[in-house]
Amino acid sequence: MNDHKPLRVALLGCGVVGSAVARRLVEHADDLTARVGVPLEIVGIAVRRAGRDRSDVPVDPSLFTTEAADLVTRADIVVETVGGIDPARELLLSAMAHGASVVTANKALLAEDGPTLYAAADAAGVDLYYEAAVAGAIPLLRPIRESLAGDDVRKILGIVNGTTNFVLDKMDSTGAGFAETVAQAQALGYAEADPTADVEGFDAAAKAAILASLAFHTRVAGRDVHREGITEVTASDIAAAKEMDCVVKLLAIAEKASTDDGEGISVRVHPVMIPRSHPLASVRDAFNAVFVEASAAGQLMFYGRGAGGDPTASAVLGDLVAVARHKVNGSRGPGESAYADLPVLDFGQSWTRYHISLDVEDRPGVLAQVATAFASHDVSIETVRQRVVTDPDSGGPRAELVVVTHRATEAALNATVETLSELDSVADVVSVMRVEGA
Amino acid sequence: MNDHKPLRVALLGCGVVGSAVARRLVEHADDLTARVGVPLEIVGIAVRRAGRDRSDVPVDPSLFTTEAADLVTRADIVVETVGGIDPARELLLSAMAHGASVVTANKALLAEDGPTLYAAADAAGVDLYYEAAVAGAIPLLRPIRESLAGDDVRKILGIVNGTTNFVLDKMDSTGAGFAETVAQAQALGYAEADPTADVEGFDAAAKAAILASLAFHTRVAGRDVHREGITEVTASDIAAAKEMDCVVKLLAIAEKASTDDGEGISVRVHPVMIPRSHPLASVRDAFNAVFVEASAAGQLMFYGRGAGGDPTASAVLGDLVAVARHKVNGSRGPGESAYADLPVLDFGQSWTRYHISLDVEDRPGVLAQVATAFASHDVSIETVRQRVVTDPDSGGPRAELVVVTHRATEAALNATVETLSELDSVADVVSVMRVEGA
Repeated sequence: MNDHKPLRVALLGCGVVGSAVARRLVEHADDLTARVGVPLEIVGIAVRRAGRDRSDVPVDPSLFTTEAADLVTRADIVVETVGGIDPARELLLSAMAHGASVVTANKALLAEDGPTLYAAADAAGVDLYYEAAVAGAIPLLRPIRESLAGDDVRKILGIVNGTTNFVLDKMDSTGAGFAETVAQAQALGYAEADPTADVEGFDAAAKAAILASLAFHTRVAGRDVHREGITEVTASDIAAAKEMDCVVKLLAIAEKASTDDGEGISVRVHPVMIPRSHPLASVRDAFNAVFVEASAAGQLMFYGRGAGGDPTASAVLGDLVAVARHKVNGSRGPGESAYADLPVLDFGQSWTRYHISLDVEDRPGVLAQVATAFASHDVSIETVRQRVVTDPDSGGPRAELVVVTHRATEAALNATVETLSELDSVADVVSVMRVEGA
Repeated sequence: MNDHKPLRVALLGCGVVGSAVARRLVEHADDLTARVGVPLEIVGIAVRRAGRDRSDVPVDPSLFTTEAADLVTRADIVVETVGGIDPARELLLSAMAHGASVVTANKALLAEDGPTLYAAADAAGVDLYYEAAVAGAIPLLRPIRESLAGDDVRKILGIVNGTTNFVLDKMDSTGAGFAETVAQAQALGYAEADPTADVEGFDAAAKAAILASLAFHTRVAGRDVHREGITEVTASDIAAAKEMDCVVKLLAIAEKASTDDGEGISVRVHPVMIPRSHPLASVRDAFNAVFVEASAAGQLMFYGRGAGGDPTASAVLGDLVAVARHKVNGSRGPGESAYADLPVLDFGQSWTRYHISLDVEDRPGVLAQVATAFASHDVSIETVRQRVVTDPDSGGPRAELVVVTHRATEAALNATVETLSELDSVADVVSVMRVEGA
C-alpha cells in the first residue's frame, strides 16, 4: 500500500482515553500524516450509548456508532480503549481476522488471554501493540521488547499502579491508616468507588504478567502471578519502614531465579520495604516508575504518568503510528516471543528478604532461641535490633526485636515465621514485610 | 531472505564496546538466533593494529583484520564502535552502498553529518540505527523516535555526559574546586587524560543535536548547539546553588520556543542550577538521565548507565536485533524524519531563568537601582535576597544581593547583566547561573 490512500482507523470506546485519542488524531492530523506517510482517517467510534453529548470530541457526530462488531470489519487499524475481557476479545479477534492491526490498552485481556490474541495476529499477518496497557505514558514495553532485545533482563521492579502508590505515599507522609487514606484518595479521584482491582493488586498483577512475558520470552498470565494487595498494610508497618529509613511500595516484581531444576521465573505483586535512597522510593503521588536490571545494560529506570487520558493517549498514538507505518510499507513489528518457555516458579521458590518485627520477653536466652529458629530453616540474619519497651498491661519489661534477613526462599522465610510464632518467648510476630532494592 | 541463512555481521572496532559486543554475540548466540529468526555470524572484526593479544574476545583469531574497507563490502550488518569522523564516515557510506544496514555508536559523526548517512541509507534501502550514541544503555532514541511518534515533544533536559556529572557531583559533595576534582576523576578513570571533549561540552552538544533532531523532526547539527562547558564552574557557584537548595548539572537542553516569527527550537549545553527535588538532581556519579516533556505524555524520565562496555553493548545489540529482523523480513525501520524543518534559534532567543549574585554597596537606593536595571530590559524578578557582609579590605559594610529572575530571553538577561556591571553601586557581578526545572 504505497499510495496516499488514508488508513482507516476505528476507535472502540470514547471514554477518558478514547476521546483523548480522537482529539489528538484530529488536532495533530498534519504531523501524524507526515510521520506515517499517509493520513489517518477516523472511520467510526464505537460507543455503548448513542445520543450522549460528545461535543468535546471534534469529529463528525455521524461517526459515533453502537455497532462495534460491524465497525471492526471495515478498518485498517482498530484502537481499543474499552477494557475488560468481553466483548473486547471478540471484537479484537474479529478485527484481526478482517485484516486490521490492533492497538489496545487492555491489560486485563492481555494478561488473561494474550496468546490467543497473538495467534490471531500471526494468522492474519497484522500487528498487536499495547504500550498503553502498562504504565500509561511511559515508553516501557517497546524498550523491553526491542531496545533490550539483545540483552538478558534479570529483574523488573515496578510501581505500576497509581492508586496504591498514592495511598502508600500519603500514609507515609501523614501517618494515617489504610482505610482513612483510601477514603481520601476516593474523594480526590485517585481511587475508584470500588477500589478492589487496585488495592488488592489485580491491576498490578495483570501488568506484571505482561512485563514478565515480554522480558523473559515466556508466556505468563495474570493467574500465574502471586498477588497480595495493600489492604493489610498498617500505619505501624509504615512507621517500622521509616525507622529503617525505608518506604513501603506495592511492587510488581518479575525476576529470573535459579532452582535445582534450572532457571525459572518468579512473578509477584506485594508490598515491600525499599530504602529511601532507591530511585523507586522517590516516586510520589500517582506516578509510575519501573526499574529494570539487565545483565549488560545494568540498572535502568523509566518514570512518568501511569494513567490519565492524555498520557495514555500518548502511548496509544505512538503504537498507532508504528502499526500504520507497517501497513504503509507492508511489514510487521515483532510478534509474540515465547521461545524461552521458562517455568513460572511457585511463590515459595522465589527469593526475597524479610523484615520481621517480634514482641518478645526481655530475658537472657531469647535472642539465642530466635536466632536458632532462623538457622533451623537455613535463613541467614543480616541485622538484629533490640529495644526494651514497657509492657502496656503488666508494666514489666518487654523487648521489641527487629530482624532483617539475607535473601532466602519465600518458603524458608515463611517456615521461619511459623517456627518463631510457636516459641514461648515470642509473644507476637508483630509484622512481616519483604525488603527489596537494598 | 526468509530462509535460515545466517546474517553476516562485521564489527568495526574492538575496544571496550566492540569487544563487549563480540563477546555477547558469541555467548548469547542461541537467544539472539531465537529473537532474530536466523543466526548472526561474525564475519570479521576490523582493528587498527594486527597482532595484539585479543584472547578476551572468544572468536576465531583469523576474523581480526586491518582491512576495514574490504570487510564492510561483505556484510549484511556493519556495527561501528570506532568513533570519530574519519575513516568511520567513508566506511559506513561504503557499507550501506554495498547493502549493509548500519548500527553505530558514533555520536560525533551523526552530529556532524547525519543527513549524509541517512541519505545513503535511503538510497540503499537499509537501516541506520544508533541508540548507543546517546546515553549508553538507556533506551532513549527508540522511545523518542517511535514511542512518542504520536505525541508532541516540547522539551528535553538531559544529563548525557557521565564525566561532567561525576565532577559536578563530587564538587557538590566535597566542596572542592574544578581542577582538583577533575584530577580526581582522571585518577579514578572517569575522565580522560585530555578531558576537553567532556568538560567543554562537545560530547554533550553532539548528543543534544541528535536528541533535538529526533524529537523535533528537524535537522540539527552539533555546530548548531550553543555550548558552554563546566570549566568555569567554581566551588562558590556550587555553594550558592546549595544555599538555594539546588545542585549544578551540565544539561543538554532542547526545546520548542515561540518567537515573533513562529515556532523554533533552542538547543544548548551549559551548566544549570536545578532544585534538589527535581528527578535529575538525584542522578549521581557517572549515571545519565534524560527528562522529556511531551504535550500528551507529560513528564517522563529515563535513567541508567551512559557509558561502559557492557551497557553500551546492550544498546548496540538491541539495534542489531532490530535491523537483523528487518533484513529477515525484508522491511526497514523508520528513516530520517526532518519534515518539520523548524528554525534553530539563536542562543539569544532561548528562554531561561537566571540566578545572579551581586556584590553591592550597603546603602539606601541600591536595590532600587538594581531593580531598575532588570526592568529596563523587561526582565521580571522572582526573588531577591540581601545579606550584609563585611568588606574584607575596608572592614566596612557591603551587601550580597542574590536575584532569581522569571523566564526571559537569554539576550535580555545578558543585557541586564551588562547594565548591572556598569552600575556604580555594583562592585562585582559575582556569578551568573541559569536555572532550570523549577
